[in-house]
Amino acid sequence: MSDPMIVSFPLLATRLSWLVVFACAGTANSMEVNVVDYGARPDDGRDDTRAVMAALDACKAEGATRLVFPKGRYEFHPQFAAEKYFFISNNDEGLKRVAFSLEGIQDLAIDGQASEFLFHGFINPFILDRSSNISLENFSIDFERPFHSEAIILGCDEEGMDVEILEKFFFKVHKGTLLFTSGQDDEGPLTTVSNGEVYGSSHMLEYDTAKRETAYMAHDFYFSSINGYPAESLGGRKVRIRVPGLKGIPGNTMVFGPNHRKVPGIVVSDCVNVVLHNVTIHHAGGMGILGQRTHNVTVDHCKVTPSHGRMVSTTADATHFVNCTGRIVLTHNLFENQKDDATNIHGIYVQVVEKLDDDQVIVQLMHRQQHGFDFLKPGSVVELVRGQSMITYATATVESVRRINKECTAVVFSNSLPDDIQIGDAIAEIRDYPEVTISDNVIRNNRARGMLLNCRGKTIVEDNYFHTPGAAILFEGDSCFWFEQGGVRDCVIRNNTFDNCLFGVWGEAIIDVKAGIREDQETSRYNRNVRITGNTFRVFDQSTLLNAYCVDGLTWQENSVEKTSAYPPREAALPPFVVNFCDNVSIDAKGSLSDVDSEGNEG
Amino acid sequence: MSDPMIVSFPLLATRLSWLVVFACAGTANSMEVNVVDYGARPDDGRDDTRAVMAALDACKAEGATRLVFPKGRYEFHPQFAAEKYFFISNNDEGLKRVAFSLEGIQDLAIDGQASEFLFHGFINPFILDRSSNISLENFSIDFERPFHSEAIILGCDEEGMDVEILEKFFFKVHKGTLLFTSGQDDEGPLTTVSNGEVYGSSHMLEYDTAKRETAYMAHDFYFSSINGYPAESLGGRKVRIRVPGLKGIPGNTMVFGPNHRKVPGIVVSDCVNVVLHNVTIHHAGGMGILGQRTHNVTVDHCKVTPSHGRMVSTTADATHFVNCTGRIVLTHNLFENQKDDATNIHGIYVQVVEKLDDDQVIVQLMHRQQHGFDFLKPGSVVELVRGQSMITYATATVESVRRINKECTAVVFSNSLPDDIQIGDAIAEIRDYPEVTISDNVIRNNRARGMLLNCRGKTIVEDNYFHTPGAAILFEGDSCFWFEQGGVRDCVIRNNTFDNCLFGVWGEAIIDVKAGIREDQETSRYNRNVRITGNTFRVFDQSTLLNAYCVDGLTWQENSVEKTSAYPPREAALPPFVVNFCDNVSIDAKGSLSDVDSEGNEG
Repeated sequence: MSDPMIVSFPLLATRLSWLVVFACAGTANSMEVNVVDYGARPDDGRDDTRAVMAALDACKAEGATRLVFPKGRYEFHPQFAAEKYFFISNNDEGLKRVAFSLEGIQDLAIDGQASEFLFHGFINPFILDRSSNISLENFSIDFERPFHSEAIILGCDEEGMDVEILEKFFFKVHKGTLLFTSGQDDEGPLTTVSNGEVYGSSHMLEYDTAKRETAYMAHDFYFSSINGYPAESLGGRKVRIRVPGLKGIPGNTMVFGPNHRKVPGIVVSDCVNVVLHNVTIHHAGGMGILGQRTHNVTVDHCKVTPSHGRMVSTTADATHFVNCTGRIVLTHNLFENQKDDATNIHGIYVQVVEKLDDDQVIVQLMHRQQHGFDFLKPGSVVELVRGQSMITYATATVESVRRINKECTAVVFSNSLPDDIQIGDAIAEIRDYPEVTISDNVIRNNRARGMLLNCRGKTIVEDNYFHTPGAAILFEGDSCFWFEQGGVRDCVIRNNTFDNCLFGVWGEAIIDVKAGIREDQETSRYNRNVRITGNTFRVFDQSTLLNAYCVDGLTWQENSVEKTSAYPPREAALPPFVVNFCDNVSIDAKGSLSDVDSEGNEG
Repeated sequence: MSDPMIVSFPLLATRLSWLVVFACAGTANSMEVNVVDYGARPDDGRDDTRAVMAALDACKAEGATRLVFPKGRYEFHPQFAAEKYFFISNNDEGLKRVAFSLEGIQDLAIDGQASEFLFHGFINPFILDRSSNISLENFSIDFERPFHSEAIILGCDEEGMDVEILEKFFFKVHKGTLLFTSGQDDEGPLTTVSNGEVYGSSHMLEYDTAKRETAYMAHDFYFSSINGYPAESLGGRKVRIRVPGLKGIPGNTMVFGPNHRKVPGIVVSDCVNVVLHNVTIHHAGGMGILGQRTHNVTVDHCKVTPSHGRMVSTTADATHFVNCTGRIVLTHNLFENQKDDATNIHGIYVQVVEKLDDDQVIVQLMHRQQHGFDFLKPGSVVELVRGQSMITYATATVESVRRINKECTAVVFSNSLPDDIQIGDAIAEIRDYPEVTISDNVIRNNRARGMLLNCRGKTIVEDNYFHTPGAAILFEGDSCFWFEQGGVRDCVIRNNTFDNCLFGVWGEAIIDVKAGIREDQETSRYNRNVRITGNTFRVFDQSTLLNAYCVDGLTWQENSVEKTSAYPPREAALPPFVVNFCDNVSIDAKGSLSDVDSEGNEG
């Protein structure tokens, strides 16, 4: 019987895997698995998900050390992908279809050999979970239909803005609302449970079409909680977005950001020794690379960069690391056009919400995208801080934990807690803070900031190139809104080039401190030992170079400042250095454009 | 130290549970747990969730046979509730907070003793999972902030409709969109990941305020995929909904239905012998009672009815049963004002999506709200049907299954499948179809239909009262849209009163057949042996009493028809009996208002 629909998949896989085993049996310490032996076919346009899943299963079962892909394009669809419920810090939790699901795998290199991995719909490319000694190399990740959408601005008036939506960004204007879609056919009659695959959007931002970056001084325009925008069709791909107050220059590009972060590109969770090398991420529906609770991560010679002339690469941060340890190394990468920061390296604060006993509290993860971030365990050493100031007032050791749900955990400590512990205080892990090396990277043309340095381990940021519309480097952390533990202790920023940064709204200075210290600024010294030396600042106006507060130990020397006319000046001249509530400050502005105008050393 | 925040909860619970054990130790075969011994306090306005969880844990550990609540009001909030990922047929899957989570519990009666259980936010009241011999009795379920919203219609014109939103249905008009909310404070500054707790709505329907039922001939107005409606504020609670084409009579009530079914009231899953007695469900964000894969369920002397003068009780079906076995008994209940049918008893069809081998296919759950409905297991006997006609062309026995994800399962059968199996065919379980007894119920003032009888076991529907805007009784089933296996084999409808039904748009006849037979109607006889006798039909016009097609064995006798003027006549006179593609039809219309006008016995 000939039946073109027969895909005798698992049988074929089983038969061929034995061939592979025999072929490799002679190699004692290394074994290579080739994905075509499991049914994957490059460049045939057909789904390769099951082949990859079978190949990974074989790698795990056989202890393979390499999984290789003959060069070509491989396709991944959600229909037959495995699924797992996953909590991904700073991205959206959920029951996710995953293409490359590495769970408990050791000593494996996945070598794409210059292949393209193309994903279709809501399928997560990579989740590495409790795996060790993994390297991912030599491939690109992209999505057929991106999670954001783009349009050319035609004009605006008091009623709203007219745009022409670019090809490949499918949409419909349904009952007065602009909704972005997958582009697949309508699903038939509407019912009380219809839920078409909408590519929900909640955020608009204008981009400069020619410069391929966010438009000069463009503001985020938020539309939280609905999936689209009030609109009417003007025929063809032209739409009038009926939102008064929208501004934009005709010819510029309006980018519609997704209202979710369901599909980050590469998630590395509870792993040890992970290396990403020569991986290109053209797109993700969330962050590009997210590392959590992982020991030693290297991202080297990788790129986050758009494809197909799109304005946007990933729809959130290029990279992001939470509660990691060991060493974090970001070297020789290109991070461009992502819709948020290039990196943010931090810990998590949980809030004390109930006191159960002298030695027992309930803590709660306060930010929706931190839910399920279980990090406290017996033996964890923690700091107790005041919520509004982040001043550490005690430390303690965890004896036992009882997880109540994804938000709340009951924690028993090995000793009584201080009498003055309060509801609203926060707790974070004092851990083997990672040493951070960020060098030789190019960070440009993204929305928002360059790097958020919330890393307590020794941090070196050198020989990087920044062209960001917001602060190039930001020190943040707070325990009352984002609940991100930060506060550097030893941070060197040297020999970088800051090229016409701060042409947008996301920051007060090129190197900026925004730690969420709402009280006790006189005594709080959240960041310490920041040395800014040998950098080149190209500036187009008299914006602030350095804004610092609550810092103990701040050195600025041998930095040069060159004036350009790349952008119109932003506003009246601001002081180049704004320093408040700091101690041990040394600013040698020789080579800087204007005189030092510090607010002084208040301690 | 006096600290009002100390709630030494688990310690108290532990100490008191021992007292309970000692108190009950003498009673050999029965043991009662009182929830106040675990910290619950009626009528104090404080959360009782943890107390109930602890009490249930104790019941399970001690083998208690009764859990009692001193009469009063108990409150349930999600913050410290346990959570579980649950797939609930015809409702929304998800990681759910649950108040009463019964998992693997046997021989327990929960007696509310006339208590009120009040739920706050997104917390599921009851999930009974793999439990047996459970009874729930003597309490009510309600939600502080319902999942739907209501407004009084002020007027409409070509631009849309003006409404005044009733108190307690919190809302905001945000950037030109009407959004319903929880009523809690705004969450602070918007960010790219803001996601306020919106009570999303996708559906509008006009209700007759005086009659407290859906407005005469009102249509569903769907707004899928956004969470609200284009609107502008008119000040106070008045809003202009800018949707052309909306119709409604000033003074009537516009009901805004939720765009989800996340919070059904009582879920009974994979259980045996469950009884609900004297339980009142005032509200749920989904169905009232959902039973799946359960053997023997009784709902007796229960009510689904609004509270607080609301127009709506549950936002979906009052009751609903999927792939159940044994006996389903619905007696002496009141089902009113729910936003969908009073009951629907059916099985599930999965679709054949890929053929792997002569004896192996991949099947897929096709309706989003069926995902995760795992029902095939080794030994399951199944029917194979054609997708468009539901004609059974073969049966088979399952040898093994491999779940791929929540939608797809690979199934191996014990023998080769027919050569002519096609992609698009469907498979359903041939099971111990439940005997169904539905008697002495009052079904009225809800949206849509009365009962969907898709039950293959012996079914008796007698002594019920129906006042429904759609068909009072509907025979459905299809394997190409809803994928619900139906097709009665022995169905008696006797001595019921059908009181001015069909004053709305949901049905072609008071007793209606809508089986999704798209092909081969000449041969398909999906429903069989339907006997309609001794019923009273009060009708306000010449609508169709009985519309049947593809039925083998249809008897109508000794039914009386009385003319009323309760509503304006709907349209031109329609034949009282419309019968197509049926065999063995006997219609004795003596006592019916008009002459028999059958389309004849085409067989």
